[in-house]
Amino acid sequence: MDSFVLPSFISPNSEDIKRRIYARIRSDLHRIEAEIDRNINSSIPLISVVARHIMGSGGKRLRPLLMILSSRLCGYTGDRDVSLSVVFEFIHAASLLHDDVVDHAEFRRNQPAANTIWGNPGVVLVGDFLYSKSFLMTVGYNNIRILEVLSSATTKMAEGEVLQMVHSDNLEVDEEEYLEVITRKTAVLISAACQVGAIFGGASPEEEEALRAYGHHLGIAFQLVDDTLDYTGDVKELGKPVGNDIREGKATLPLIYTIKKAKPSVKKRLGEIFCAEEILPENFLEVREMVMRSGGIEYTLHSAIEHVQKAKESLDIFPAHPTKETLVEIADYVLCRRV
Amino acid sequence: MDSFVLPSFISPNSEDIKRRIYARIRSDLHRIEAEIDRNINSSIPLISVVARHIMGSGGKRLRPLLMILSSRLCGYTGDRDVSLSVVFEFIHAASLLHDDVVDHAEFRRNQPAANTIWGNPGVVLVGDFLYSKSFLMTVGYNNIRILEVLSSATTKMAEGEVLQMVHSDNLEVDEEEYLEVITRKTAVLISAACQVGAIFGGASPEEEEALRAYGHHLGIAFQLVDDTLDYTGDVKELGKPVGNDIREGKATLPLIYTIKKAKPSVKKRLGEIFCAEEILPENFLEVREMVMRSGGIEYTLHSAIEHVQKAKESLDIFPAHPTKETLVEIADYVLCRRV
Repeated sequence: MDSFVLPSFISPNSEDIKRRIYARIRSDLHRIEAEIDRNINSSIPLISVVARHIMGSGGKRLRPLLMILSSRLCGYTGDRDVSLSVVFEFIHAASLLHDDVVDHAEFRRNQPAANTIWGNPGVVLVGDFLYSKSFLMTVGYNNIRILEVLSSATTKMAEGEVLQMVHSDNLEVDEEEYLEVITRKTAVLISAACQVGAIFGGASPEEEEALRAYGHHLGIAFQLVDDTLDYTGDVKELGKPVGNDIREGKATLPLIYTIKKAKPSVKKRLGEIFCAEEILPENFLEVREMVMRSGGIEYTLHSAIEHVQKAKESLDIFPAHPTKETLVEIADYVLCRRV
Repeated sequence: MDSFVLPSFISPNSEDIKRRIYARIRSDLHRIEAEIDRNINSSIPLISVVARHIMGSGGKRLRPLLMILSSRLCGYTGDRDVSLSVVFEFIHAASLLHDDVVDHAEFRRNQPAANTIWGNPGVVLVGDFLYSKSFLMTVGYNNIRILEVLSSATTKMAEGEVLQMVHSDNLEVDEEEYLEVITRKTAVLISAACQVGAIFGGASPEEEEALRAYGHHLGIAFQLVDDTLDYTGDVKELGKPVGNDIREGKATLPLIYTIKKAKPSVKKRLGEIFCAEEILPENFLEVREMVMRSGGIEYTLHSAIEHVQKAKESLDIFPAHPTKETLVEIADYVLCRRV
């Protein structure tokens, strides 16, 4: 399948940005990897194996990284940040495990999904372990406000997952409902990582709010781009098939926009495909063609650009600082990432 | 199926004890029910419906009750106990929901199991919601020690569930490993409810430890009796079929004892039945006969009696007090309960 050519308003130099960001965060990434490794062990081998499978396979470590950068931007200079940061990777991993059970996923990042190897029971229970362990690790930091942000985030995430399930196979979802779902399923945890970083770094209330907002908009943009990649991405780069969302009955913004703009005949055809028992590769290509033609991809990417803009503006209250530059570059990178 | 006649060392007056306890705790139970009802609502209807199904169907409310009684025994007299107490029912409900997914359960308390109505995805996600909501509710109490006990308990519970799954279809489990599993899967949360009650009630370290130990031994006894009821219980009273454990490949103490004492021929026959693809009703009757004859039920109940004894002794450090009497009676009731 051809990969989609990025619109000209987005810089094609994603590899350049990636290299630049990587040079700045390399040592933090090493610390994060070592800390994940240290915490992944359990006296029960199955837990370590499943956790290693879901967390050891080339994740971006975006959430821990944002927590560390946020605390640093607020003045933290010690090394206790890293243990707290991996909590966000643990929660993310737990939600991926439970998602795979919910979606009957077969692949994740070019590997068989955990549930296809260890079955639903093991995956549900290891997910539970990772959630609980996250809270236990956070309690050690003796900070109620951090625990409040974290438990509020996981509660909203769980509600978001239920909401997405309730909406599945429903083409009538509007943009507002969709934004509510992606706020809860993606933005809330990214936002919490930034806010917790701020609290941990001793932020003022304004700084905390700024980083919370940065994470929120970054998270929305991240998910919007993700949703376009499910139409336009390269299968090999993504490590999972494209067209997943439609197959799982998820109407995302590219499709929601397309339906809103479509003539009744197109709308009817989309409805037929979307609600069919099975969605064949040619059906997906047909939907993709309609989405491309309607401008659904551009519309979604424009929305992502606006959120990236808001994310960067949220950082305006901070003075110039290398960490601020890194956060700005991460926001830019979200727009041109291909995986 | 005939129900098993309780050995003579156990008082048959379970209805008397039940009535006496109920008279003491009636108003607390009403407060607990009202508080569960108040907290069960979510803006997402499916969450309320599934939560209501799992929590509205005649549970014993043992965990919230123990939390309230423990705090009262340590001197608490206000009304903020009840919101904290229902956290333990929420966590219990979440673990039941995930258990039903893990065990492919069809019934619970005379009703279809939630997963047979709403499917695994909904049940997994509502379970996640209840776990997260529990932490969020607890954070409101602004007490790190309580959060520490709670997150440590749920982490151990999750490990216990994985451990039980790993041991399933394994007849070689010994008594020590079995005790480790039931400690984690049952005793840990009951013990945490008592310990949190103590902390909330302003207990001294000795009082806190006493109530933790009370809950631990009570929890072990509770599960031991449960495991005998799966062999000897009345199907109608229990609200679920007997023989569940064997069908799910769980070797509990009555069977573990029987295997340890059995002649090679009996051991071989038990192994054949236990490892078969399907366990027919007549297979269960055959196993039950062997377990009864070997004294596996008496052995397990004797062990339960010892733990009840230890639970009651743990309370020795407290002076005479009506709440202490209630806790003692609850411990006695665990031995003669039929459901």
